[in-house]
Amino acid sequence: MSLIYEGKAKRVYETDNPDQVRVEFKDSATAFNGQKKAEIPGKGIVNAAVTTRLYGWLQDHGIATHFIEQLDDRNLLVDKLTMVQLEVVVRNWVAGSLHQRTGIPEGTTMDEPIIEFYYKNDDLGDPLLNEDHIRLLGAASPDLVARLRQEALRINQVLKPFFLQRGIVLVDFKLEFGWDAMGELKLGDEISPDTCRLWDQSSGERLDKDRFRRDLGRVEEAYQEILKRVMS
Amino acid sequence: MSLIYEGKAKRVYETDNPDQVRVEFKDSATAFNGQKKAEIPGKGIVNAAVTTRLYGWLQDHGIATHFIEQLDDRNLLVDKLTMVQLEVVVRNWVAGSLHQRTGIPEGTTMDEPIIEFYYKNDDLGDPLLNEDHIRLLGAASPDLVARLRQEALRINQVLKPFFLQRGIVLVDFKLEFGWDAMGELKLGDEISPDTCRLWDQSSGERLDKDRFRRDLGRVEEAYQEILKRVMS
Ligand SMILES: Nc1ncnc2c1ncn2[C@@H]1O[C@H](COP(=O)(O)OP(=O)(O)O)[C@@H](O)[C@H]1O
Ligand SMILES: Nc1ncnc2c1ncn2[C@@H]1O[C@H](COP(=O)(O)OP(=O)(O)O)[C@@H](O)[C@H]1O
Ligand SMILES: [Mg+2]
Ligand SMILES: [Mg+2]
Repeated sequence: MSLIYEGKAKRVYETDNPDQVRVEFKDSATAFNGQKKAEIPGKGIVNAAVTTRLYGWLQDHGIATHFIEQLDDRNLLVDKLTMVQLEVVVRNWVAGSLHQRTGIPEGTTMDEPIIEFYYKNDDLGDPLLNEDHIRLLGAASPDLVARLRQEALRINQVLKPFFLQRGIVLVDFKLEFGWDAMGELKLGDEISPDTCRLWDQSSGERLDKDRFRRDLGRVEEAYQEILKRVMS
Repeated sequence: MSLIYEGKAKRVYETDNPDQVRVEFKDSATAFNGQKKAEIPGKGIVNAAVTTRLYGWLQDHGIATHFIEQLDDRNLLVDKLTMVQLEVVVRNWVAGSLHQRTGIPEGTTMDEPIIEFYYKNDDLGDPLLNEDHIRLLGAASPDLVARLRQEALRINQVLKPFFLQRGIVLVDFKLEFGWDAMGELKLGDEISPDTCRLWDQSSGERLDKDRFRRDLGRVEEAYQEILKRVMS
């Protein structure tokens, strides 16, 4: 069936059912708004499997997601969503741009999670938005912003212990939401080492895309390690 | 009396009264977080006079400000404030970073003003903050954030018609607040062509620091034109 959209990490295809799409996970990795590019062999397989496991877990805990079934090692069948043009970021520990923005050292824990909204717009470099900007852009109503925040916090509450039981600190992660054909708001896209910061609980070792972003080496090994722990 | 602080555009001096300071307005101009520097002859005199006029006008309209009196052409006597570490930006028309952040064309008007909070921290490049960041940094309580927003909107309502009566569109401006010795929250710092975008109503000509930032020429003339109109 025909390709609807090719992104940086995935391809989205039509299916026989107009309300469903197939998402194919690629090995391509990009960083810094596409300026840095590489292939990470096996990444697509890891991310498809990790997303399958996590979205199953989330659905078991009452979170509405687009996930229907895994078709093969790189392909998931999901509800077709009309995506909200925002990325919702949840942070439990200070890292990356939150360190740069605030000057607070990486690895500082926070009493309460931080929520950020970014404009999903590659041409503009996915800029941070405040709630006035979101209103101006019509990207979401104040009501929807409140729902996205609440849903992101609920997801965090479900995922944090899931990872911790597997020796992984969920430092931060990015979510995308959308509406299905019935008008239900659902979690879309993926949750994987591409979209989370995951630190080994005892060593602090980075087991996520930061190994690629920061040239830390052993990128494939980190993805495989996450796969192993998440599947356990 | 001794210098307390030398900033990019002003110097702050002690006075005989520990609750008051003298603010001296320099001709130095900087842009892009200090990367671009120049002297704009007469700028300090314009900014001292414009601030005096506007803060007088604001006080006449019930806004609490630090302004006490103009001492000479470059020096104002003001209440010494403990500054909130936030810059509050009010925007009526799209320009500058709001254009870059949203992709909305410069010169687009907005139904409701946009408020932004920036972290007053030169080392970090004065980054945009959302309310979660402000809480994390302890820069302001949620209550204070709400008060700053409300106060900034009130100031906008007083200044917009003041400028419009003088043929000037108040596109956007930056405010700084602080607490005086009695614990009262007051508007501090300055309001001038350095801290506002001011466009001629009929021609759209920029009459503010953007002439310097963007090398538009006739910088001194623009400042003098604002002085003339604001004094009228
Ligand atoms: N259930 C869904 N229905 C339709 N589109 C989706 C769904 N889930 C995710 N998407 C979108 O599909 C694209 C996934 O490809 P990706 O490579 O991540 O793209 P990008 O480079 O834009 O991040 C994204 O634009 C994402 O918003
Ligand atoms: N009433 C006041 N009391 C004490 N400090 C003030 C007052 N009003 C403004 N300030 C501070 O004085 C400094 C003014 O100098 P300026 O050249 O604008 O500095 P900067 O380069 O930090 O912007 C700013 O740091 C401003 O916050
Ligand atoms: Mg993506
Ligand atoms: Mg200043």
